[in-house]
Amino acid sequence: MSSFSHLDENGKAKMVDVTEKSDTDRVAVAIGEVILGEEVFWKIRDNEVEKGDVLTVAKIAGIQAAKKTYEFIPLCHNIFISNISLRLELKEESKSVVITAEAKTVSKTGVEMEALTAVSVAALTVYDMCKAISKSMVISGIKLLHKSGGKSGDYTYGE
Amino acid sequence: MSSFSHLDENGKAKMVDVTEKSDTDRVAVAIGEVILGEEVFWKIRDNEVEKGDVLTVAKIAGIQAAKKTYEFIPLCHNIFISNISLRLELKEESKSVVITAEAKTVSKTGVEMEALTAVSVAALTVYDMCKAISKSMVISGIKLLHKSGGKSGDYTYGE
Amino acid sequence: MSSFSHLDENGKAKMVDVTEKSDTDRVAVAIGEVILGEEVFWKIRDNEVEKGDVLTVAKIAGIQAAKKTYEFIPLCHNIFISNISLRLELKEESKSVVITAEAKTVSKTGVEMEALTAVSVAALTVYDMCKAISKSMVISGIKLLHKSGGKSGDYTYGE
Amino acid sequence: MSSFSHLDENGKAKMVDVTEKSDTDRVAVAIGEVILGEEVFWKIRDNEVEKGDVLTVAKIAGIQAAKKTYEFIPLCHNIFISNISLRLELKEESKSVVITAEAKTVSKTGVEMEALTAVSVAALTVYDMCKAISKSMVISGIKLLHKSGGKSGDYTYGE
Amino acid sequence: MSSFSHLDENGKAKMVDVTEKSDTDRVAVAIGEVILGEEVFWKIRDNEVEKGDVLTVAKIAGIQAAKKTYEFIPLCHNIFISNISLRLELKEESKSVVITAEAKTVSKTGVEMEALTAVSVAALTVYDMCKAISKSMVISGIKLLHKSGGKSGDYTYGE
Amino acid sequence: MSSFSHLDENGKAKMVDVTEKSDTDRVAVAIGEVILGEEVFWKIRDNEVEKGDVLTVAKIAGIQAAKKTYEFIPLCHNIFISNISLRLELKEESKSVVITAEAKTVSKTGVEMEALTAVSVAALTVYDMCKAISKSMVISGIKLLHKSGGKSGDYTYGE
Repeated sequence: MSSFSHLDENGKAKMVDVTEKSDTDRVAVAIGEVILGEEVFWKIRDNEVEKGDVLTVAKIAGIQAAKKTYEFIPLCHNIFISNISLRLELKEESKSVVITAEAKTVSKTGVEMEALTAVSVAALTVYDMCKAISKSMVISGIKLLHKSGGKSGDYTYGE
Repeated sequence: MSSFSHLDENGKAKMVDVTEKSDTDRVAVAIGEVILGEEVFWKIRDNEVEKGDVLTVAKIAGIQAAKKTYEFIPLCHNIFISNISLRLELKEESKSVVITAEAKTVSKTGVEMEALTAVSVAALTVYDMCKAISKSMVISGIKLLHKSGGKSGDYTYGE
Repeated sequence: MSSFSHLDENGKAKMVDVTEKSDTDRVAVAIGEVILGEEVFWKIRDNEVEKGDVLTVAKIAGIQAAKKTYEFIPLCHNIFISNISLRLELKEESKSVVITAEAKTVSKTGVEMEALTAVSVAALTVYDMCKAISKSMVISGIKLLHKSGGKSGDYTYGE
Repeated sequence: MSSFSHLDENGKAKMVDVTEKSDTDRVAVAIGEVILGEEVFWKIRDNEVEKGDVLTVAKIAGIQAAKKTYEFIPLCHNIFISNISLRLELKEESKSVVITAEAKTVSKTGVEMEALTAVSVAALTVYDMCKAISKSMVISGIKLLHKSGGKSGDYTYGE
Repeated sequence: MSSFSHLDENGKAKMVDVTEKSDTDRVAVAIGEVILGEEVFWKIRDNEVEKGDVLTVAKIAGIQAAKKTYEFIPLCHNIFISNISLRLELKEESKSVVITAEAKTVSKTGVEMEALTAVSVAALTVYDMCKAISKSMVISGIKLLHKSGGKSGDYTYGE
Repeated sequence: MSSFSHLDENGKAKMVDVTEKSDTDRVAVAIGEVILGEEVFWKIRDNEVEKGDVLTVAKIAGIQAAKKTYEFIPLCHNIFISNISLRLELKEESKSVVITAEAKTVSKTGVEMEALTAVSVAALTVYDMCKAISKSMVISGIKLLHKSGGKSGDYTYGE
């Protein structure tokens, strides 16, 4: 059956085989922003959005999505997530909410996609909860801020 | 049991009750962009990304995610989606891929979140497939371009 | 192919065929209770549970579970839910939280299971969020309070 | 926005847009077989498989999978299923179990994939429950036996 | 990036970070009851419920739900479950079915929620399968009977 | 609580308790075929199927389904999959596509069901994408070709 080790060589859409990698502590931090506009910004700040407490619901949505990252990112592995935490901060100068997510695992592969997915789904949830007020919100600047652990080592955005 | 029609009045985290709305044709178009950088841009253009054909995989991921929008956006309804289509276009001047998604339904509520989710998950999939080449990609400018149908009528971004 | 209309007659584990039923408005209300004990009761009331705002998280969990009822109740239909709303009320005399859920649809079959599932999962979420304080909480009295719509007509518990 | 009606013309991986189709009654019947071999055949017949009652578990697995067809078949629509029924019959001459599934809907698109998925997952479940006895079982002959309803009309295999 | 270790300090809805915990054997046993009433009790005992074999279907539903606990309990970890077993026993004196579920893992966190979820979903499935006979069934007394393993040690209800 | 180790002895539908097993490298390879017929065969070969690139979409569907095997095969464990790879080959003499899937894990239990599920769902996806051309395709010969690792040792079909 030796040829099976080459199964994907000419193929497309292949996962990375992580069988031989070791379980190590891995952390990833991602960030993103939802530009809300004046009206939405103040309504969130005053917790006056009709659908409910926007920041709490968005945080929960982000946590749940991170645990299911492997379901919607086709080539991601279904790893154990030892922690996901999200912080949502209102930024008055840009009338936006800044979303930071940190994902942690002890696994054979990293959690960059889990952190990025948490930010994205939290941002979409903010949009959903506020879209009756304004449809002009923009989700922007989603990127990996930092990662550590694994063979490829540490990474910090912009360094 | 008349008080149940007021069940959420003092509460938080409430869905919009769409029981009384009529089924009408609804369309939503969303857009977003992944800033790839030089190296990733050319590798996608030449279909040289090791994980496979990036644009096809991202398109499928977007279609599948749109159908499951109600699973990760907590207050979305589980509506029937009559069509989702995605277009991914490489834009050389910005070294980016522009993702457009159109969602359609015949339902009691709109498909804005489905279109935005399709764009977001397609963008995350592009990131995932190319992150071995560069981790500095940025997902940006996700917004609703257009919607039609439903009581609130037509909407076009910037108009 | 006429015999196929009798496909399940000698079988087991069969769904109810609702093809011929008409789409009508249907509502179901379910109720249940989590007996918290002194310590948990006061910590929830004062929003001092370490994992976060218990009642909001439980409400969201209930809404999301209701939309996925057909996934874990094997013979349930995958119907469109036009609204789910939950109310969680602290009851000092019994040191408990009372959970009421109302589910609505316009469909060929009822939403009793969706309302009961929303209550159950909200109750489990309360347990999860407070189990670091006490493991002796008991989930109790989950039942259908009321339903209307459909061929079998109205039902009220105890009448 | 007129160009959006042509969104996928040059693309790949596209769903069929069913927005304009009408809701009609649709039925599909699929069939398949698991060649069990002597030992597994008699153990199922005598309900002696250690994991439990094979035919009941397989039937439930098939029903549940049919309801989630749109989750794993990327370009399928998330339609309402009004009924799924499975019949599993032991066939002594071939030492096999024959699986028939009938799916029904009132929808804009057909249920062929739901019937075929029900058969496939029921067959996989039979394999799973019996694989401690024999790993040489073969799943075979999965095909659409019959469909009715929809614009393309009736179809019967072999006619 | 040191501040990220404090990411949730002022926040809400946070998971417990289990990154530093060790993988140990953990077991949890939960229990609950469905008060059936006379008619449903005897129909289940005689396997005369039209939807099929109630206890087998409920057992499978409980097993499947336990594996997906992390999907509907927002702050639960997605752990590997090494075993779930359910026992459903008819109790004639109370005309009820008593459901016991035992969950096991080798993991960084416990399986209390998995055992409680298995009981709850099995109970809901009993309700669903019998609700055509009676809608007055009540799900009651769901609690954690026993747990072992992990830093917090053993726990037995009532001790 | 000693009796709980015997919880399932008289029961049905039981998982295999793998708590005491050790994590070892495990590999499984499964195979299957879709008999396409003339017209479908040539349209796939020439990439002229209207729904898009059949082999790429089927490959992705197979990968995603393998990661969710435990969701639709009721008694499967939710294991970590370290790799899934699929190969789809057109075979002119039989006018068919042959699907091979290899699944790998480092776990307490094997990946036979994951490999078989990947083949089955890739086959169903081929059917779905081509059914507008012909409904007479047949999915056939799905079997386990090879497995290694675990207490039961190596297995090769036909040896």
